[in-house]
Amino acid sequence: MPYDFDAATALTPDGDDHYTVELVPTWSIAGALNGGYLLAILARATTAGDQAHPDPVAVSAVYARPPVPGRATVQVQTLSVGRTFATRRATLRQGDRDVLFATVTASRLPDSSVEAVWDDLPVPGGPGIEDCLPTHATRSVGAIAVPLMDHVSVRVDPADGGFALGRPSGRASLRAYVSLPDGRPPDPLSLLLAVDVLPPAIFSLGGDPGWAPTVELTVHLRALPVDGPVQVRSRTRRIAGGFLDEEASAWDSSGVLVAQSRQLALVPRTG
Amino acid sequence: MPYDFDAATALTPDGDDHYTVELVPTWSIAGALNGGYLLAILARATTAGDQAHPDPVAVSAVYARPPVPGRATVQVQTLSVGRTFATRRATLRQGDRDVLFATVTASRLPDSSVEAVWDDLPVPGGPGIEDCLPTHATRSVGAIAVPLMDHVSVRVDPADGGFALGRPSGRASLRAYVSLPDGRPPDPLSLLLAVDVLPPAIFSLGGDPGWAPTVELTVHLRALPVDGPVQVRSRTRRIAGGFLDEEASAWDSSGVLVAQSRQLALVPRTG
Repeated sequence: MPYDFDAATALTPDGDDHYTVELVPTWSIAGALNGGYLLAILARATTAGDQAHPDPVAVSAVYARPPVPGRATVQVQTLSVGRTFATRRATLRQGDRDVLFATVTASRLPDSSVEAVWDDLPVPGGPGIEDCLPTHATRSVGAIAVPLMDHVSVRVDPADGGFALGRPSGRASLRAYVSLPDGRPPDPLSLLLAVDVLPPAIFSLGGDPGWAPTVELTVHLRALPVDGPVQVRSRTRRIAGGFLDEEASAWDSSGVLVAQSRQLALVPRTG
Repeated sequence: MPYDFDAATALTPDGDDHYTVELVPTWSIAGALNGGYLLAILARATTAGDQAHPDPVAVSAVYARPPVPGRATVQVQTLSVGRTFATRRATLRQGDRDVLFATVTASRLPDSSVEAVWDDLPVPGGPGIEDCLPTHATRSVGAIAVPLMDHVSVRVDPADGGFALGRPSGRASLRAYVSLPDGRPPDPLSLLLAVDVLPPAIFSLGGDPGWAPTVELTVHLRALPVDGPVQVRSRTRRIAGGFLDEEASAWDSSGVLVAQSRQLALVPRTG
């Protein structure tokens, strides 16, 4: 039986470079399908069957319209194939509308055990996973439905998780451990989920911010993660003029930086 | 007479959503055309004539092959147009080869005077522009030709610029003021240049690192800059397995964050 994440991102080939996929309704927060989940589907489609370039290394996506659960199609277009890299575009389509556009450059990632020539983004300190807040403590935020948290375990550093208890930290920053509860080991596809699965860092500023729709999200993958929970730190640097950013860094359980991302999102319109 | 930067990025319409452009040989370092210069050309093509979405807000590009100076074409494809955003793809082509692929989401950027709801990426301190190292002090690095520095003024903080004098700082970080010497005011297009025009931050680690070819570069534009030099801080967080990242933040002369970028690049192969 496949792991939950692999089943939820499974593609059925349907012609040349064309796939169908069932978007699972519960990979969502407050009715919105998770952006990292959707990105993993497109990255899977662009790397399917390319033995020479098995790993996504740079993935960027524009979220044009929110997709709905159910059937969708993925069209892949190959832009460039060389010895080291292959670059492809993938479009997620529902009905007669394109909803998500991704560009994926694939190559072969190093193992996380490879020696770094330079590293000044060390794994954050703080409480271990057993002392972090389990998902059920954060799923009731603002009384919104967070069924995604049944598919992904997100354990938030108690120093950052006060927003769930009405005591926001006042810093637009969160640290959490991310893992898949059925024991599926992390890989580049699940890292695309991990960098976009924490509660929005702006929750820690207080208020009732609501959902911040992603405009654009780019992820750079740096190494193949070893097995174990992935640690993610997310941070928003500026909110102004209706836009906000959120950057995320992810380390594998051996403490190696395995992914970096930044997204541009819209400031939630609160009632 | 147009400004130098506008002349060098000028497009000649050549059919529907198709342009020709002359890539100017001197917008280059060691023979390689600057990636920010090329990105500005594609962003110009994707926003040409769209009055409702005049400003690029999210620009991501994959550098598949190094283009050569001279004639090239730009093909634009519209992916999605809504009230707030328009998303287009642009491909730079030379001969029968696609060399650069960009996805540009355009909207209307706020003025940098708009009040920030949150801002924890303040403009760096340090010496003012008049106390920073003028471009001629950095153009002789490793005895490579840097004709780009005749088109763009880059004045490096002396605390970071020691690499040019054989005294690298040991930190993979640089701060510099960027401006266009003929007085062209900064705008979103020139910000795409600014975030990719500093010497590589890895120069400050010493050695003779050579050119680090960009694989993927994504820029998020945050506000329309006021007139005056743009301050840019660049930083490399990890070098491992043949890849390195370089992130850049840019502030306008009023101290407001106007652009954020990150690129994934290849570690130079030194002889």
